[in-house]
Amino acid sequence: MESKLLLLIVIEPWGVSKQLRFTPDWESLDTREIPSWFDNAKFGIFIHWGVFSVPSFGEWFWYNWQEKSPPFVEFMEKNYPPGFTYANFAQQFRAEFFDPNHWAEILKSSGAKYVVLTSKHHEGFTLWPSKYSWNWNAMDVGPKRDLVGELAEAIREKTNMHFGLYHSLYEWYHPLYLQDKANNFETQDFVRLKTMPELYELVNTYKPDVIWSDGDWEASDKYWDTLNFLAWLYNDSPVRHTVVVNDRWGRGVGCKHGDFVNCQDRYNPGVLQTRKWENAMTIDKEAWAFRRNARLSDFLTTRELIETLVTTVSCGGNLLMNIGPTADGVIRPIFEERLRDVGSWLQVNGEAIFGTRPWTLQNDTLTSNVWYTSKRIFIWKYVYGITLRWPENNTLMLGAPVPLTDGSVVTLLGYKDPLKWSIFKGVLSIQFPEMNQVESQWGWAVKFAI
Amino acid sequence: MESKLLLLIVIEPWGVSKQLRFTPDWESLDTREIPSWFDNAKFGIFIHWGVFSVPSFGEWFWYNWQEKSPPFVEFMEKNYPPGFTYANFAQQFRAEFFDPNHWAEILKSSGAKYVVLTSKHHEGFTLWPSKYSWNWNAMDVGPKRDLVGELAEAIREKTNMHFGLYHSLYEWYHPLYLQDKANNFETQDFVRLKTMPELYELVNTYKPDVIWSDGDWEASDKYWDTLNFLAWLYNDSPVRHTVVVNDRWGRGVGCKHGDFVNCQDRYNPGVLQTRKWENAMTIDKEAWAFRRNARLSDFLTTRELIETLVTTVSCGGNLLMNIGPTADGVIRPIFEERLRDVGSWLQVNGEAIFGTRPWTLQNDTLTSNVWYTSKRIFIWKYVYGITLRWPENNTLMLGAPVPLTDGSVVTLLGYKDPLKWSIFKGVLSIQFPEMNQVESQWGWAVKFAI
Amino acid sequence: MESKLLLLIVIEPWGVSKQLRFTPDWESLDTREIPSWFDNAKFGIFIHWGVFSVPSFGEWFWYNWQEKSPPFVEFMEKNYPPGFTYANFAQQFRAEFFDPNHWAEILKSSGAKYVVLTSKHHEGFTLWPSKYSWNWNAMDVGPKRDLVGELAEAIREKTNMHFGLYHSLYEWYHPLYLQDKANNFETQDFVRLKTMPELYELVNTYKPDVIWSDGDWEASDKYWDTLNFLAWLYNDSPVRHTVVVNDRWGRGVGCKHGDFVNCQDRYNPGVLQTRKWENAMTIDKEAWAFRRNARLSDFLTTRELIETLVTTVSCGGNLLMNIGPTADGVIRPIFEERLRDVGSWLQVNGEAIFGTRPWTLQNDTLTSNVWYTSKRIFIWKYVYGITLRWPENNTLMLGAPVPLTDGSVVTLLGYKDPLKWSIFKGVLSIQFPEMNQVESQWGWAVKFAI
Amino acid sequence: MESKLLLLIVIEPWGVSKQLRFTPDWESLDTREIPSWFDNAKFGIFIHWGVFSVPSFGEWFWYNWQEKSPPFVEFMEKNYPPGFTYANFAQQFRAEFFDPNHWAEILKSSGAKYVVLTSKHHEGFTLWPSKYSWNWNAMDVGPKRDLVGELAEAIREKTNMHFGLYHSLYEWYHPLYLQDKANNFETQDFVRLKTMPELYELVNTYKPDVIWSDGDWEASDKYWDTLNFLAWLYNDSPVRHTVVVNDRWGRGVGCKHGDFVNCQDRYNPGVLQTRKWENAMTIDKEAWAFRRNARLSDFLTTRELIETLVTTVSCGGNLLMNIGPTADGVIRPIFEERLRDVGSWLQVNGEAIFGTRPWTLQNDTLTSNVWYTSKRIFIWKYVYGITLRWPENNTLMLGAPVPLTDGSVVTLLGYKDPLKWSIFKGVLSIQFPEMNQVESQWGWAVKFAI
Repeated sequence: MESKLLLLIVIEPWGVSKQLRFTPDWESLDTREIPSWFDNAKFGIFIHWGVFSVPSFGEWFWYNWQEKSPPFVEFMEKNYPPGFTYANFAQQFRAEFFDPNHWAEILKSSGAKYVVLTSKHHEGFTLWPSKYSWNWNAMDVGPKRDLVGELAEAIREKTNMHFGLYHSLYEWYHPLYLQDKANNFETQDFVRLKTMPELYELVNTYKPDVIWSDGDWEASDKYWDTLNFLAWLYNDSPVRHTVVVNDRWGRGVGCKHGDFVNCQDRYNPGVLQTRKWENAMTIDKEAWAFRRNARLSDFLTTRELIETLVTTVSCGGNLLMNIGPTADGVIRPIFEERLRDVGSWLQVNGEAIFGTRPWTLQNDTLTSNVWYTSKRIFIWKYVYGITLRWPENNTLMLGAPVPLTDGSVVTLLGYKDPLKWSIFKGVLSIQFPEMNQVESQWGWAVKFAI
Repeated sequence: MESKLLLLIVIEPWGVSKQLRFTPDWESLDTREIPSWFDNAKFGIFIHWGVFSVPSFGEWFWYNWQEKSPPFVEFMEKNYPPGFTYANFAQQFRAEFFDPNHWAEILKSSGAKYVVLTSKHHEGFTLWPSKYSWNWNAMDVGPKRDLVGELAEAIREKTNMHFGLYHSLYEWYHPLYLQDKANNFETQDFVRLKTMPELYELVNTYKPDVIWSDGDWEASDKYWDTLNFLAWLYNDSPVRHTVVVNDRWGRGVGCKHGDFVNCQDRYNPGVLQTRKWENAMTIDKEAWAFRRNARLSDFLTTRELIETLVTTVSCGGNLLMNIGPTADGVIRPIFEERLRDVGSWLQVNGEAIFGTRPWTLQNDTLTSNVWYTSKRIFIWKYVYGITLRWPENNTLMLGAPVPLTDGSVVTLLGYKDPLKWSIFKGVLSIQFPEMNQVESQWGWAVKFAI
Repeated sequence: MESKLLLLIVIEPWGVSKQLRFTPDWESLDTREIPSWFDNAKFGIFIHWGVFSVPSFGEWFWYNWQEKSPPFVEFMEKNYPPGFTYANFAQQFRAEFFDPNHWAEILKSSGAKYVVLTSKHHEGFTLWPSKYSWNWNAMDVGPKRDLVGELAEAIREKTNMHFGLYHSLYEWYHPLYLQDKANNFETQDFVRLKTMPELYELVNTYKPDVIWSDGDWEASDKYWDTLNFLAWLYNDSPVRHTVVVNDRWGRGVGCKHGDFVNCQDRYNPGVLQTRKWENAMTIDKEAWAFRRNARLSDFLTTRELIETLVTTVSCGGNLLMNIGPTADGVIRPIFEERLRDVGSWLQVNGEAIFGTRPWTLQNDTLTSNVWYTSKRIFIWKYVYGITLRWPENNTLMLGAPVPLTDGSVVTLLGYKDPLKWSIFKGVLSIQFPEMNQVESQWGWAVKFAI
Repeated sequence: MESKLLLLIVIEPWGVSKQLRFTPDWESLDTREIPSWFDNAKFGIFIHWGVFSVPSFGEWFWYNWQEKSPPFVEFMEKNYPPGFTYANFAQQFRAEFFDPNHWAEILKSSGAKYVVLTSKHHEGFTLWPSKYSWNWNAMDVGPKRDLVGELAEAIREKTNMHFGLYHSLYEWYHPLYLQDKANNFETQDFVRLKTMPELYELVNTYKPDVIWSDGDWEASDKYWDTLNFLAWLYNDSPVRHTVVVNDRWGRGVGCKHGDFVNCQDRYNPGVLQTRKWENAMTIDKEAWAFRRNARLSDFLTTRELIETLVTTVSCGGNLLMNIGPTADGVIRPIFEERLRDVGSWLQVNGEAIFGTRPWTLQNDTLTSNVWYTSKRIFIWKYVYGITLRWPENNTLMLGAPVPLTDGSVVTLLGYKDPLKWSIFKGVLSIQFPEMNQVESQWGWAVKFAI
C-alpha cells in the first residue's frame, strides 16, 4: 500500500498539470474521463440490506405501508401490534450470522469485479455509525456493528474486487426533508444538516470506488447541492482517481450526466449506447430486498441471468446484479447458487466478457440469441460470438460479417480443439463438437481471431 | 383569552417604550424583572419521564450502564440479551395508559401552581416530535404521541396551572456533541445542528412558562450560545411576558444568573436568600425517574414533604416536587397519594403559602420547627407562623417579635374561633384548641393580623 | 424443628387412639376439630400472583378476553399483535425483582399471622414446577424459579407466620376439563390426570397449613373427588395436624362444609356466625391481581381496612386481606404502606384482636362503630370495645352491658393511665385523654377487665 | 366418499372372515401384509417442522443446548437474555406465511407419492391441538393453527399423495418421562397419561397412512405399550386397511419388526434387502430442521439426490427425502428447486421408478453407476437400467445378462426412437443419441422389453 501511495504522490504533479480543476457545473464535470477499471469490470453485485430486510417485503416497505398499500397494511395488522412503528423493526435487524469474509468469498465466486452496498436506503437507516444519523444506524440499534466498514475491509483484504456504496439522497420521512419539500425546496435544511454531511463522511471514511446515488428525483441538483459535492469528489476527495458515479443527482440529470448512466431500474436497451451505462437488476424479479415468502418462480434462472449479462455487455453496459441478504446476515443458498453458477460460467467464458468492447454488431443478423463482444490485446484483435442456445445439428450459422480469412482460427471457449468453419453465400457455418464434450452450459462463446 | 390578548396589545406600546431590548450578555439579561406569577406560585410539580422510565432504575440509567456501574451492568446482563442497546428500550415506552386529563386532575389536586415536564433529558429522546431528533422521539418510536403537546393542552384546559418544560442542553452520547467535546468545545456543530434548533422549536411550539435548563456543566455559555437564545426569549419570543428560566446555561452560570436559581438539586439552604430560588427535590429519595423496585421507605412521607414545603417557602424559595410516571403512562398511587395529601393540607393552609413573602424572621427563635411567612392584601398585613409539631399541652410558645397589640386577632387556619394568646417576658403563648377539633394534620398555621 | 417433630411422634399414639380415621364423606369430615392456630390468627394476607399479573387487568383476564368482554378485547387489539395468545404472556412474567425475604419482612410488618399464595389460579399456570403442568409453570416459562417453594421457605425461616396455598380445581381452558364438562362431568379425565395428581404433589412438597380451594362451582364434589382427598389430608398427609381448608370443594358445598367457610368473596355478614368463617377481600377494590392502571381511589384507605378487620373479628371471622404483586416480583409501595399502617395499628391494638373470641354483643347498641371482642387469659377475662371514631368531647358513651364493678379497671390501648368512667341510666361514659396523647389512630380499643 | 365407504362395508365380511385378528405380540403382528400402495410409492417427502424451526440450528436444539454443547450455549448467550427458556421460542413460531395448498403444490411437483410430517418431535410440541399437550401445541401457542389438520386436508384435496405422520414416543424433558426413566421405566405414568392418549387421538383425528415412530430407544416396547397400540391399529383403527408403520417401537425392535424398516437415519445399504425398507435422508446434509445459516455447500445437489433415489429404489427401498420449512411457514426456494428438479426428472423417468420391483441384479457388473429396476404390466415384463453418467462416446456398455432376443426393443426414456444395440462377448452395447436430443439430465433410463 505504501509504495502505491508513494507512486501516486510522485505522478501527481503531471496529473495536476494536465488536469485543470473541475468547476461545479455539468459542463466541466462532464469532461471527466471515467476511470478505466469500471468499463473493464462489466459485472458487479448489488446488495440491498437494511431495516427493510426485517419485514422482508421489499425495500419500499415503509413507504408502501404508510401510503396504505393494502397488502402492507394487512401484513402489519395481521402480525404486529397497533402502534408498532417502522423504527421498531430496527431492533430485529440483528445480523447475528453476518460473516463478511464469507460474503466476500461468495461474492467473488460469482466472477464479479465490484460490489455495491446500500449504505443508506430511503428509510434513512445508515449501515455505518454516522454522526448525522444518531440512534438510526447499525451501530446504535440492531446489529451494533459497522456493516459498511466490515464488508469494505473483507472485500479489500480477501478479494481484488472494487467496493462501492449506494446512497439515497432523500429520506421518505425525515422531518427536515419533509419541511424542505413543503417549502418547495426553497429551504435546504435537510441537505445542509443531513445528506451532505453524511455523504462527505461516507467518502472520507470508506473511500468507495463507486458512489451509486439514488433518491434524487423530487428536487433539482441545485437543491441537492450535488454539483459542489461532485467537484470536490473529482478534485480533492481521497478517491478522486478511482471513483465512478452514476447519474442520479437531481431531477432531470438522469440518463444525461455522471460517469455512467443507469437511466432506470433494469435498464437493458438491447442496442449500443453512446455513454457508458449499467444495467442494475435483481435476481429476485419482485424485489431488491430479501423476501421471506419469495417462491422459486420469482427468481431468474441461471440461464436468464447469463442471457442478461451477455446482452448487457454486448451493448456496452455493465451488469449490476442484485441480491438481498437476510436480517440475520445471510446470503441465502438460492442467491449463493445463482452467484456460483454465473461464476462457473465466467470461469470458462469470462474472456468474452471482461475487458471487452462492443463490436460492430451487437447481435447476429441471421441467428437470434447470438451476441458479440470484441477485444484487443496488444496487436491481436478478437471477436466473440456468444450463443445462448445450443445450435441445431451442432452447427452455428452466422450472418454477421466476421472478417475471417482462410487461416483464421475459430475456437469455442471451454473446448480444446479449433472448430471447423466455412462460408457460403455470406453465411458463416461453424461446426460445434458434441454437447457433452464442452465444459460450458447455458451459453457458448465462439472466439474469432481476426 | 381574547380579552387578555387584547389587553396585552393595548399596553404593549408602554411596555416597549419603557423596556429597552435586552442584549445578549448577563449584564443586560440580569436586569429583567421576573414575571410576578412565579414568586406567587410557590409550589410546582416536576415530572421526569422518558425512555429511562422503561428499565426504571433512575434517569441516569444509560450513563451508569455505559460507564460500567456494576448494578446497572448486572441488571442488563441478567435481563437482556447481549447487543441490546439503550435505544431498544424506546420500543417498550408505550404510554398506553397515559390520560393527560387524568394527570392534570391529579397534579391540580396537589395544590401546585405549575408543572415542569422533562421535554428531553440527557438521553436526547424528545417527548415531542422534534424535527431535529428523527426516530428518537415519542412520535416516531414508542408512544407514537406528542406527549409534551398533550400534557400542555390538558394542563391549560383543565387547570389554571402554568406549564413549563425541562430541557437538557447536552446529550451524553450524541455523536456531534462528543465530537465537539473532543475538540475542546471549539467547534459547535452540536449546538448549531441540534440543541439550539430544537430549543427554538420547543418554545415556538409549546410556549412554556418555565424553561428549566439542565446539562450545561461541561461547557461555557459561549459554547452553548445561550446568551443569544435568552435575549431572543426575553425580547421576541411568544412567551417574553410570562416565561421564567432557571440558572443552568453554562459552566459557572449556576447560582449567579437566571430569573431564579436552582444552584444544586434538592437545594434548601434554610436561611433567607437574596435571589429568587427554587428547591427541586424528589418524593422518591433515590431517583427522579420511576423505579419499579422502589420500597416504601424510599418515599418521603407526607409530613416530610410538608416540612420541606414550609421551610422552602419561608426562606423565599419555590418548591418543585418531583414525581416519576411509569413507561405505561401512569402516576402510580403512592405518588398520587402524596400529591393529594399535600393538596389536602394546602386546602386548609394554602393561605399561608401562596402569594406570601418571607418575613423578618424565617424560623422561630424559641420553638424549633416553627416557620414564618407574611402577606400584604391591600392595606392589611399578616404574618403566618407554621408549626410542624403539635404544641405540647396545646400551647405554642414563640420567641419571635410578632408585633401584636391588645386587639390583635390570632387565628389558626382550619379552626373557626380566634385563639387566646398572651405575652409574658417576650414569650408569646398561644392557646391551641384540642387536636381533634382542627381540620389540619402534619402542620398548623397560626395567622397574625398585624 | 427436630425436637418438635420428636414431640409429635411421641404424642402420635394417643392422637391415633383417640381419633378414629375419617371416612370420605361429609358426615365424618365435618367432625374434625379445626386446628386451634387458625381461629387465634385472625388476620392473614392473600397474594394473587400469576401470568395474569402481566397484562395486569385483573386475574380473570383470560376469561374476560376470550368471552369477548369489550374492554379486554380492546386492550388486546390496541396493544398486542393478532395471534398473540394468553400463553405468550408467560414469557413476560419475569419476577426479576422477587426477593422472598423482603416479601416476608413486609408481610410480617402487617401483623398478619398467615399468608395464602395462589399456587395455581384458573389459568392453570402453576407457580411451582409441577410435573403435571409441563411448560406451563413458573420453572419452565417466565420466572424460571419455584415461586411457591421460595416464598414458603422465606416465610418459615424469617417469620412465625403460617403458610397456606390457594389452588383452583378447575382450569378455564384445559382441554381435558372442557371435555369432561362437555360430557356433563360423567368422565373425570381432568381430575384423574391433572387436578388430583397436582394437589397431592402440592401438599407433599410444600406442606401448606391452609389449602384455600377454589374453582369448584361447575361440578359436584363427586366429580372433583374431593372427599377422598380430604380424608387423606386429615388422616395421612404430612399436614394432618395443622392444615385447615376452606369450603370450596364442589357445587353446593360452599358455606356448609370445610374447616372454615368463605361463602363468597368479601363475605362480611356483620353479625355473629355459627361456623368459623373468613372474610377474603382486597385492598384494591376492583381486583385481586395487580392492575397497572389502578388509581388511588381504587384502594381502600387504612381506616377502611382497620374497620373491616375490626368488624370481621368481632363477628368471629378471620380477615384475609389481598395484595397483588407485579409481574416483576414487587409488592408496590401503596400495598406496602397499607400493610405497614395496619401493622402499626396492631402493634398497639393487637391485644384486642389476636386470640380473642366474640363477645356477647358484637357492636354497641348506643354508639355506632364500636365493636367488641373478648379474651380469657388463665383466670382473667377481658372485654375490648373498639371505637372507629374518636368520641365527641373525648367521651365515649356505651350502651352495652359491660359487667363493670366499682373497682373495675378500664384502659385505652396505647395510653398509659386508666380511664375515668361512670354509669348513668345504663349508659357507660368513658373519659378519653386528649387525642394527641394517644399512640393510636384510625381506631381505639378500650379494655375492660371484668 | 360415501360410495367408497359403502364398498368397504360390503366387502368387510370377507376381509374379516379371512383375517383373524392380530394379537399384541410381534409373532402375530409380523404376519400382517403391508398395504400395497407403500411399496409402489417409492418416493416420499419428509417434513421436519416445529419449535426448533425458530432458533433453526437443527431439531435437536433443545437437547444440545441443555447438554451444554458449546456452539448452542454460545448462540443462546450471544443472542438471548438470561432466563430465556426453550418454551419461549414457541411464541416466535408464527407460520404467518403457511399456505398448505401451496405446500401441496410444491410437494406434488417433486413427483413424490407420500408426505410425512413431524406431528410431534422430541421437544413434545404438538403441531395439532392435542388435549394432552395443553399450552404446548400449535393452536395454543405460536401459529394458533392446526398445522397437522391443515396440511392433511390440502394434501388430500389437492393431490393424490398419501399423508403420514412422524411421532416421537419420548420427550426429552417431560417431567413424567424423566420420572419414569428415573424409576428404570418400572412406572409408566408418561406412557399412560401422555404418549398413548395422544397417539390414539392422532390416529383417530387425522387418519394417517404412515405412522413414522421415533424416540423409542431408551426403553423397551413393554414400557411403551406399543404392541397393544399396533394390535389396535391393525385390527380396529380407522386406518387398519391402509396404514403402514416403521420399526421404531422400542429398544431392540428396530430393523426387525414393523411394516417396513428404517434401521438408521440415511440407511442406504447398496444391496438388496429381504424386508421392505425406507431410506430417510435429508437434502440439507447437516440437519433435518431448517437452518438459517446453512450454506449452499450443505445441500445435496439434484444429481446427488437422483443418485440416492435410484440406488435406493434399485435395492428395494423407498426414499423419504427431508425438507425443513421455516418458522414463518415457507418452503424456501433452495428446497423448492431441489423438489421441482427431482420432479422434472421423474416426469421423464418415473416409469423406471414407481411401481417397480428389484431386478435380479441391482447394479451393473461392468459399468459402475448403472442401476436396475423391473416391472410387470399384465403379460409384459420390463427391465430398466438407469445410468447416472452420460456414457462415453454415447455408447453404454453393460455386463448384466439382460435377456434380449433379436427383436427386443430397447428404448431410452425421454427419446422417441428405439436405440441400436448389439451383444459381443457378453457385453451389451447400446448406442445413445446425442445428448442434446434427450429430454433428461442427471440420469438416463434404458428400457428393455423382455
